[in-house]
Amino acid sequence: MEFAKRVSSLQGSAIREMFKLLGDPEMISFAGGAPSPELFPSVELAEISEEIIKNNPAVALQYGVTEGYAPLAEQIRERMRKFGNLKPDNDVLVTSGGQQALDLCFKSLLNEGDVVVVEQPSFIGGLNSLRSYGAKLIGVPVKDTGLDTDMLEDILKRTKIKLLYTITTFQNPSGITMDMATRKRILELAEKYDFYVLEDNPYFELRFKGETMPSIKSMDDTGRVIYAGSFSKVLSAGMRLGWAVARNDIREKMVICKQVSDVHTTVLTQMIAAEFFNRYSLDEHIEKARNFYGKKCSLMLSAMDKYFPDYANFTRPEGGIFLWCALPEYFDTKKLLAKSIKEKVAFVPGFTCAIDMDAPCPDFRLNYSLPADDKIETGIRILADVIKNYDPEKD
Amino acid sequence: MEFAKRVSSLQGSAIREMFKLLGDPEMISFAGGAPSPELFPSVELAEISEEIIKNNPAVALQYGVTEGYAPLAEQIRERMRKFGNLKPDNDVLVTSGGQQALDLCFKSLLNEGDVVVVEQPSFIGGLNSLRSYGAKLIGVPVKDTGLDTDMLEDILKRTKIKLLYTITTFQNPSGITMDMATRKRILELAEKYDFYVLEDNPYFELRFKGETMPSIKSMDDTGRVIYAGSFSKVLSAGMRLGWAVARNDIREKMVICKQVSDVHTTVLTQMIAAEFFNRYSLDEHIEKARNFYGKKCSLMLSAMDKYFPDYANFTRPEGGIFLWCALPEYFDTKKLLAKSIKEKVAFVPGFTCAIDMDAPCPDFRLNYSLPADDKIETGIRILADVIKNYDPEKD
Repeated sequence: MEFAKRVSSLQGSAIREMFKLLGDPEMISFAGGAPSPELFPSVELAEISEEIIKNNPAVALQYGVTEGYAPLAEQIRERMRKFGNLKPDNDVLVTSGGQQALDLCFKSLLNEGDVVVVEQPSFIGGLNSLRSYGAKLIGVPVKDTGLDTDMLEDILKRTKIKLLYTITTFQNPSGITMDMATRKRILELAEKYDFYVLEDNPYFELRFKGETMPSIKSMDDTGRVIYAGSFSKVLSAGMRLGWAVARNDIREKMVICKQVSDVHTTVLTQMIAAEFFNRYSLDEHIEKARNFYGKKCSLMLSAMDKYFPDYANFTRPEGGIFLWCALPEYFDTKKLLAKSIKEKVAFVPGFTCAIDMDAPCPDFRLNYSLPADDKIETGIRILADVIKNYDPEKD
Repeated sequence: MEFAKRVSSLQGSAIREMFKLLGDPEMISFAGGAPSPELFPSVELAEISEEIIKNNPAVALQYGVTEGYAPLAEQIRERMRKFGNLKPDNDVLVTSGGQQALDLCFKSLLNEGDVVVVEQPSFIGGLNSLRSYGAKLIGVPVKDTGLDTDMLEDILKRTKIKLLYTITTFQNPSGITMDMATRKRILELAEKYDFYVLEDNPYFELRFKGETMPSIKSMDDTGRVIYAGSFSKVLSAGMRLGWAVARNDIREKMVICKQVSDVHTTVLTQMIAAEFFNRYSLDEHIEKARNFYGKKCSLMLSAMDKYFPDYANFTRPEGGIFLWCALPEYFDTKKLLAKSIKEKVAFVPGFTCAIDMDAPCPDFRLNYSLPADDKIETGIRILADVIKNYDPEKD
């Protein structure tokens, strides 16, 4: 059996096999990447859902348009305008989750062999979608101010790149927020070296510290930036609602690609979201989420300050749901995870966020949105012991 | 701006521009491809939806697994077993509508330049997905017994093909059902000439005449057949629920491709469907749809017998929602549509169902599931006049 070349480069199973262990009810998992179900506005959504199906079944249960349910698309436009992300000659496309926004952008722009710069570390879903289109990936390290633009320019001087893929705010997996100077520099470089930027921004509204930072898209006057948003982290992940904002010519290609992928996003969940935003304040809902995640992040950081060895360097996110911990080079966090899982604590080893997934990686990602408050301290304490007892010779 | 090569071959807009005219409330549209909203079990689905979100929000609104919501996947397995479609070492993958089942199959199997045989005419969504992967398409005409296997073998003798894409029952757009001899012959040819078959079967339960025909998949002992099913025509199109049945190695690749496309299908609609099938009989629901569409099909055929000129040759489907009408070669149904739309009647011109969309086509597709009963006779009468008044010199 000969499969398509594009699938041979995808190691989907490495992660999924690991995640199967998370079914163990005793496991304290910092490996998740989901919003807290405590924040789902389920009573409101249940009522809205019933009303919509009962009163408007001919729309809710019927085929819809590829571009998205019009009232929801308009609400997203309004929200994007508020943040300066909806430029003239740009428009919104509703997608089946943020992942599809990335996938459709790559599908529309990339030919096999096109060079794409990605952050190192980066989001596995973005990396795998890029791999599936045969993109040639070059990694640029993420510093505490965001991706290293000096190193980026070194690459640009010798290599023609088509696209830069960046998660600008509360990056997955690092939790780092790119500073303003870096954002501006990326846009300058995009103009100078003629490449496009996919700004993936699913977490940015979950800020619990510091000041809101303008997106790169909001400073983009030439349509070089494609913006990807998501309701997964601020409303519901299972409803699969995301969007892209792109220059009309790019968006039109993304619409065509979406038509062959899934025709359109589930109408019912689009209508439920639109009506929820009509009746309730998304901003108030997000405010709750900010406080909730901010508290959990503090709990985790306090426990890490208390229990983790000094050689563990970790980020202190101002929002989002992840932080990143770098250990000395002699650690292989794939092996560390095997030990940690025996002690009933799980995390995401850094190799899954790398371009080269076969190289040993001393870093790992922790999630604080899902574990219960009391499990955060317990889990961090256990994990600290696993780290301290790690022996590169024996493990 | 340089887009991906794969999108340059897609003329998505030709159809969509046309469909925008269908918003005119006076238009009698035979151009649709959707189930009748009169058949949506909206009261039941509304109640179920509310219960699920209220009682189980942590599942319904949270990320789910790529393979599909387990209880729904199991119900699909059962249904597939009933029709002999679930072979050993095969499994079900829940998809975001039937379109995604096609797309994931093509994405997993096809490299650019791989040769795929398709029916002529065929479903534009399938053709466009194939185009997006750079497949080289060869068309084989559909006879009244289904695709012409003699012509297929002629092709196979001189060309190595990777896949055959076929809609075996109540084909879109022709309404034709492949006979048993043709089904068996295709399987023999697949063994002899070593190719795979994608059997797209979204309409087969909507039979209102004749006897149920075994699928090609049900006769497949080597896993050469990938089966695509859909709830769009028998439950709800807007819920975006379909599935594939494939040999485990192929299904595993499709799962990986789905993960990068949209992570997973909307959990809420999967749960609603699963609970609907728990509480109510899908078979009874489908029985209603059969009677409903059978009556509409008869109405349309009677009107066509009464009004259409003798030189119009049309199919007499035993199920599904489409029929196909062939006019003499001097007709160009793209031009015919422009005239017909002025008289407020719409249909799908045959060029959209062809490999070469630029060639004039004398055929067209009619849908009978959506127009109201009284509009069927009126619309057919008007369309008959448009056909009779068509002048290839002037039009």
